[in-house]
Amino acid sequence: MCSKVSKPDDGRLRRGANARATILMQAMNIASVDGLAGLTFGSLAQALSINKSNIAILFGDKLTLQLRTLDAAADVFDQKVVAPNSGIASPCQRLAEYLEAWFRYVEERVFPGGCLLVSVAHEFRARPGPIQDLAKKYLDDWGNLLAETLRQAKEIGEVAAEVDPQQMAFELKSFQSLANTASLLGERDIFSRARKTAAGRITSARKKPGTILRERAKSK
Amino acid sequence: MCSKVSKPDDGRLRRGANARATILMQAMNIASVDGLAGLTFGSLAQALSINKSNIAILFGDKLTLQLRTLDAAADVFDQKVVAPNSGIASPCQRLAEYLEAWFRYVEERVFPGGCLLVSVAHEFRARPGPIQDLAKKYLDDWGNLLAETLRQAKEIGEVAAEVDPQQMAFELKSFQSLANTASLLGERDIFSRARKTAAGRITSARKKPGTILRERAKSK
Repeated sequence: MCSKVSKPDDGRLRRGANARATILMQAMNIASVDGLAGLTFGSLAQALSINKSNIAILFGDKLTLQLRTLDAAADVFDQKVVAPNSGIASPCQRLAEYLEAWFRYVEERVFPGGCLLVSVAHEFRARPGPIQDLAKKYLDDWGNLLAETLRQAKEIGEVAAEVDPQQMAFELKSFQSLANTASLLGERDIFSRARKTAAGRITSARKKPGTILRERAKSK
Repeated sequence: MCSKVSKPDDGRLRRGANARATILMQAMNIASVDGLAGLTFGSLAQALSINKSNIAILFGDKLTLQLRTLDAAADVFDQKVVAPNSGIASPCQRLAEYLEAWFRYVEERVFPGGCLLVSVAHEFRARPGPIQDLAKKYLDDWGNLLAETLRQAKEIGEVAAEVDPQQMAFELKSFQSLANTASLLGERDIFSRARKTAAGRITSARKKPGTILRERAKSK
């Protein structure tokens, strides 16, 4: 009964996938500077010198385009920051490499406006809806990855029992938050300080678990 | 020769000032949710049910309106956070109150989208120009105030000589940066943690200057 519906051949599927990838790459660049709210079929079509209708065929509506752009940004984040380091056996070393990869990824301007996940979460902080939900989910994934890696480090005794994974993950994320803005505002000293402070926190937790961590535990 | 140019009477001046204040208040509310880029004569006129030309007469062009909105936000910041505490004699106590006032100001949603200075600096992080310059200036003023207050605390021996005012100001600003987004994303646990961590840092620097600060100085 379905014989009338012709299956697209491989070439057509591939062309569609390539077109989607090209559009999403440009969409991420636009969104990283102008915000996800500034991403429209119009701005995208103009930047790519294609017709708006081509984008509409592939993505349907603006919200879908925005959500898929955020998914694509999460893929890039994974490829640049998480995947290359997830196989490192030592949890402390893995954590340090995750952080350093993130600072490198912002420094190298993978996106012209810095880390797109941090940016979108900030842009939509006061606009509830599916974009805010998805941005929160990805940021939570990152925070959970940091905390989980620290829990693993505790389990094998790489860091002292007094280390609070949630607290330390919070501090690392704070340094990232300020660094992302600072980097783009040209405040290199703040960016460098954030990078050094994050690395120093991990080193301190690992090597000298005594005094500094007891202090922290007490202050809670 | 200038006799033809009539001077406005007091009533007219006052009405002009009131109109400006009303418009700027609404402009801050819009900008705090939709961003300063989302602030237009049109959106503002619609929200206030007035004619666009009235806004144009008072502010000239969009950029001027944006810059004056940022100035107005800095005034609110000053009134809510800095001015009520700037007379406190103890620098450590003053610093703690500045921070607590800031957390209260975000928590109470003075602006629906949180701290407008933090937000605009973030929004314009990749868009160089007069708005970025002004936002940076105000954020720098805040960072300098924190560091300067800590330097005063050192001078009178309220905190140990090992305390690095720049480093501590950086950490406090990091917690604020994450807290501003978290508060609006409904992540109360992160907001509370930021507030507690900031207060804890100041308490630790003040009361137990020994171990924790030496550790920090070494890790640099």
